[in-house]
Amino acid sequence: MAPTKLTGKHAEISAFIDRFDVFLFDCDGVLWHGNTLLHKTVETLDMLRSKGKQIVFVTNNSTKSRRAYKKKLDGLGIPAEVDEIFCSAYSSAVYIKRVVKLPADKKVYVIGESGIEEELRNEGVQYFGGTDPEERIQMQEEDYTNFVPDPEVGVVLCGLDHYVSYRKYAKAFQYLQNPETLFLATNVDSTFPNKGKLFPGAGSISAPLTYMTKRVPLSLGKPSQAMMDAIEGKFQFNRKRTCMVGDRLNTDIKFGVEGGLGGTLAVLTGVSTEEEILSSDAIAVPDAYLDQLSDLLG
Amino acid sequence: MAPTKLTGKHAEISAFIDRFDVFLFDCDGVLWHGNTLLHKTVETLDMLRSKGKQIVFVTNNSTKSRRAYKKKLDGLGIPAEVDEIFCSAYSSAVYIKRVVKLPADKKVYVIGESGIEEELRNEGVQYFGGTDPEERIQMQEEDYTNFVPDPEVGVVLCGLDHYVSYRKYAKAFQYLQNPETLFLATNVDSTFPNKGKLFPGAGSISAPLTYMTKRVPLSLGKPSQAMMDAIEGKFQFNRKRTCMVGDRLNTDIKFGVEGGLGGTLAVLTGVSTEEEILSSDAIAVPDAYLDQLSDLLG
Repeated sequence: MAPTKLTGKHAEISAFIDRFDVFLFDCDGVLWHGNTLLHKTVETLDMLRSKGKQIVFVTNNSTKSRRAYKKKLDGLGIPAEVDEIFCSAYSSAVYIKRVVKLPADKKVYVIGESGIEEELRNEGVQYFGGTDPEERIQMQEEDYTNFVPDPEVGVVLCGLDHYVSYRKYAKAFQYLQNPETLFLATNVDSTFPNKGKLFPGAGSISAPLTYMTKRVPLSLGKPSQAMMDAIEGKFQFNRKRTCMVGDRLNTDIKFGVEGGLGGTLAVLTGVSTEEEILSSDAIAVPDAYLDQLSDLLG
Repeated sequence: MAPTKLTGKHAEISAFIDRFDVFLFDCDGVLWHGNTLLHKTVETLDMLRSKGKQIVFVTNNSTKSRRAYKKKLDGLGIPAEVDEIFCSAYSSAVYIKRVVKLPADKKVYVIGESGIEEELRNEGVQYFGGTDPEERIQMQEEDYTNFVPDPEVGVVLCGLDHYVSYRKYAKAFQYLQNPETLFLATNVDSTFPNKGKLFPGAGSISAPLTYMTKRVPLSLGKPSQAMMDAIEGKFQFNRKRTCMVGDRLNTDIKFGVEGGLGGTLAVLTGVSTEEEILSSDAIAVPDAYLDQLSDLLG
C-alpha cells in the first residue's frame, strides 16, 4: 500500500498520533542536521510528551555514549533523559553483556571511539584497543611476529573510528581467525552524514575485516533486529503501539517494518526522497510521511 | 585434467622446461618467505638462465617500486635487472599513462606507499596523497566542509598502505562520487604474507571505498588480465611459450590460465596446498606442481 502523506489536516494528524504510545526517533535528518536544529523540533517533541507519549532517541551513532549524546541534545536545547537514549554503542554493550553473556575472563577488542568504551565500562565488560593511542602507531617489525590469535578475545566490536589504522586491522584479523571469536559491529551504515555531505560510516570501517575474513559482522544498529530486541528488553513497550520515525528507508523504516511495529513515519528532511518513498521498488515502505517533523504540529 | 606432480625424474623435468622460453615468477612463497631465501632459489634461476630462458619477476607487491624491489632481490642474493621486474605499482603507472592516457591536466589521488609514487613519477603522471604526512592527520572540523569532488582528479589509485587513515577514505570517497573518476587498485589481494602469517592486503585497504561507493576497482595485479596485457606490452613474449610459476591458485595460477599461457606451475612452499591443487573445485588448475621450486634442478 502506498504511504500516506500527512498534510496539514489536524484530524488526520491527531488520528495518526493517537495510534501510538511510544515514538522511536532517528535523530540526524529528523530532529537536526549536524549541529542545526530543524524547524520546531523542540515544540513537536513537547507536544508529543504533553499527550503522554514515550519518546526514545534511537541512533546508529557509535562514537558517543548515551551520556555524551545527551550533551548533544542539551546543546541543541532538546530536553531528554539518558534513559531515553539508545545509541548503537549502548546497544552493543547491552548485547555483549546480557545476550552473549560474555564470560568474565574474556574481553572485547574494540575498533571505535570513546562512546563504545564508556558503555562497555558501564556494563562491566572488559575491553582493550579503542582509543588507546598505541593502537594508532605504525606497525613495527616485531608486531608481525607478536600479533597472534588470543583465546581471551571473545568479541571483536567495530564501530565508526576516525583513528582507524593498519595496526587495528592487523590485530583484529588475527583475533577473528578464531571462529569462536564473535564479530560484531555497532552498525553497518556505509556512510555518515556531516555538514550536508557523506563521509565513511561504521560499516565502511569494518569492510576490510569482512573482506579478509569472509565473515559478516552482526550489526547492533538499525535496521538489525538485534537492536530492536535490545530496546524492547529495556523499555518493555508494546510494539503494536509504537511508531518508528526516520529519514532513511533502508535503516529507519526497514527497522520499524521488520520489527513489526504498529507504524512507521518517514520525514523528507534527510536522506530518502519523496520519489524513493513512492517508488514501487522501495526497500521499505512507511505507513506515512511528512515534509518535516513539525508538520505533526498541524 | 588433474595436474602432474613433477618428481625428481630428470627427463620429465627437462621436457617441461623445454616447452617454454619465458618464466613469469611470483616471488613471495615461491622464491623466498619474507626475508628468507627458499632452498636453492638462486641455483634454480641460474639453471633456467643458462638454458636461455627469460625470467620476469611478477609481484602484486604495491609498496615497492621496481628499483626498490631490485634492492630486495639484491639483498637476497638473487641476480636481477630492474627491467625483469614487474610490480603492481609499475603495472598501475603503465596502465594510467599508456592505456588510460590520463590527460596532463588530470592527476591521481593515491592511497598507498612510496613505490606507487616513484612509478607514477617515472611515467610522468601527476599525483597527490600517498606518503604526504598531511594525509595521516586526524580530520579537522573544516575538512568536512572542504572535502569536495575535484574534477582534476581523474583516477583514485589504491594500494597497500600501512598508514591508511580516515582522512584518506573521506577524500577518496568525495573524488569517487564523480563517475568519470576512475577507480583503480594495484591489486585486490585480501591478505599479505609476512613472517609466516597473513596481514591486511591491498584489497582490504580498498574495501571501504567499494562498500561506500558500490564501485569495484579495476585491479592492476594478478589475476587481473590488465596486468598480463601490461607485461606483454613491455616484453613482447609469445604466450604459448610462457609459463607462470606461483604458489596461489586464486592469483598466480588463475592469472596464467586466464591469460592463455602455454603453462602454469604451482609450488607447495606458499599459500595453496596439495589438497587444494588436486581438489575437483579448485579455482584454477595448474599444468604441473612441485614440492618446491628447486625440484626443477632434478
